[in-house]
Amino acid sequence: MVDIEHLQFGLETFGDIVANEDGSLQTAAASIRQIVREGKLADDLGIDVFGVGEHHRPDYSVSSPETVLAAISAVTKQVKLATAVTVLSSDDPVRVYERFATLDALSNGRAQVMLGRGSFTESFPLFGYDLTDYDDLFNEKLGLYDALRNEKAVTWSGKFRAALKNQEVYPKTENGKLETYIGIGGSPESVIRAVNFGYKVIIAIIGGQASRFKPYIELYHAAAKELGKPEFPIAVHSHGFIADDEDEAVEVAFKNIKANFDRIGLTRGWAPMSREQFEGETKVGSFYVGDPETVARRMAATIDLLDLGRFDLVYGAGNQTAAQRERMIELYGTKVIPRVKEILTEKAAVK
Amino acid sequence: MVDIEHLQFGLETFGDIVANEDGSLQTAAASIRQIVREGKLADDLGIDVFGVGEHHRPDYSVSSPETVLAAISAVTKQVKLATAVTVLSSDDPVRVYERFATLDALSNGRAQVMLGRGSFTESFPLFGYDLTDYDDLFNEKLGLYDALRNEKAVTWSGKFRAALKNQEVYPKTENGKLETYIGIGGSPESVIRAVNFGYKVIIAIIGGQASRFKPYIELYHAAAKELGKPEFPIAVHSHGFIADDEDEAVEVAFKNIKANFDRIGLTRGWAPMSREQFEGETKVGSFYVGDPETVARRMAATIDLLDLGRFDLVYGAGNQTAAQRERMIELYGTKVIPRVKEILTEKAAVK
Repeated sequence: MVDIEHLQFGLETFGDIVANEDGSLQTAAASIRQIVREGKLADDLGIDVFGVGEHHRPDYSVSSPETVLAAISAVTKQVKLATAVTVLSSDDPVRVYERFATLDALSNGRAQVMLGRGSFTESFPLFGYDLTDYDDLFNEKLGLYDALRNEKAVTWSGKFRAALKNQEVYPKTENGKLETYIGIGGSPESVIRAVNFGYKVIIAIIGGQASRFKPYIELYHAAAKELGKPEFPIAVHSHGFIADDEDEAVEVAFKNIKANFDRIGLTRGWAPMSREQFEGETKVGSFYVGDPETVARRMAATIDLLDLGRFDLVYGAGNQTAAQRERMIELYGTKVIPRVKEILTEKAAVK
Repeated sequence: MVDIEHLQFGLETFGDIVANEDGSLQTAAASIRQIVREGKLADDLGIDVFGVGEHHRPDYSVSSPETVLAAISAVTKQVKLATAVTVLSSDDPVRVYERFATLDALSNGRAQVMLGRGSFTESFPLFGYDLTDYDDLFNEKLGLYDALRNEKAVTWSGKFRAALKNQEVYPKTENGKLETYIGIGGSPESVIRAVNFGYKVIIAIIGGQASRFKPYIELYHAAAKELGKPEFPIAVHSHGFIADDEDEAVEVAFKNIKANFDRIGLTRGWAPMSREQFEGETKVGSFYVGDPETVARRMAATIDLLDLGRFDLVYGAGNQTAAQRERMIELYGTKVIPRVKEILTEKAAVK
């Protein structure tokens, strides 16, 4: 049963380029500054987590998420600062540790590392990696990250990075350990890997019915018990858009999410998104789109179905305006989150 | 003749661990937060540049300077945000570009890249580099950084990093180019290298009489003219400490600078610093220590002698308290800088 008292709500942005009111696009730099304003807004509204993605493409503004989160740390008080995700496969675990330990210092312990293999592949040629090493890279680098996370001297060697011989890495954190999640797209192997490392799990559900992830969540809990590993509440992230008016929400989301998915689909062989497909996702799938009541009901249903401990809404897909993005965040914080809790409380009383 | 109107004054910290009033040491994390407060103070006082060093050692708190500078960017308005220095030899120019372009976005164009080879060598084993490649590493990585700095598609190959084939790197800056300095310890080769790249130069004068750098500065100007390259005013950085009282300044600086230099000297074969050596540096050498009048006179003399365009004082050496560090910054901003300008103006009137 959902632990409503400890249920967490996050917002994540992939750093999409922000549009002006006339439809023209802002610069990447202006889009980055907009994200800082939004991080502050999320903090003001008491939202639990703010996450920023990592992409190395012209249609996204953030290639260095911790740099953006560091700026947000200086203007916020309580919100956790996460990536969504850090592409560990093409990064250096030592640098990742250093940057996050610094962010953790700046934010008084609010850094949250979210490690993933990356859904986009742009970083592989940029940093000299081969896509055929996709799995090996992540496994090896996760092993080194895990060794560094203990904050003691590390002796390590691997295939993809120079060996470390009794090396300490600085700065140390004040809590002794960085809070770390593994981002999962939905394979049994990645669930077992996260359990073995004893890390928290966040599942990206970017399409289809949320129920199809139930087996992975059951696998996580069963494996944690069987292997005697720590068991954490499961987190999920999915795309969404909220507006005061239901029809407006649907139109803005359709235009932007479609453009976003179609652009990505060009390089992945997806067919363009149809209106029917979009509406399937908003009605029974994994786009949380509508007025606050609609979105709250759909989020509550998913949280209840999957027994989640955290739900992050990915906002800003496509080229929304700053006003659309900020209004969505306000509605999420002031209306959707309280309403989700209310619905879940009612449901719990009936059970 | 010194261009007093455009003369710039900076502060740089290497991120030394801050002491409590009772002499015990703060955590690295608390020291990082103190640097953010000091960056804000420098901005409030109208100081031109704030620089943060990069070290991978227990006695310094900052291994990821841009992350710290990003936090400072969010609470400042005018101060330029620099590193002191970025150890390019052991970093990846693509990541360096990405982090600085992000910092530039966050700060509305206030990022200043300071590239160097690193006076400390801890980063070499940490990132898998060989000290015998010291020069080749810097040359090659500077070449790639320079190509990236044009913000166009880059095709490049080298010995120490994966090749790039027609790759663009994001985010682009709003000014089209990151402001970049090369940090120089004092070799003719490094002066010529900076001229060839058309970069600004900052010279680290950490001991001895400033006059011995005059030939390098003359070489810089002569080479720029001969090679038809851009010619910029020269910047210098040196250590200093300022207190209200002259004797107090000398005692605090001696204790801390000696401890700092002796600790480093252990691994470099330096003899422990004697009181005579320290006083030689504060009287005719390169430690700017004393009350505001003493420090202003010595800074003005160096600026005049070397015809500088910028002087950065390195503050916080050793384990000073937060109060000592902050009072030094206040005195620098409110008394030393105006007094240096006054002395130089009087000197110009006499000439």
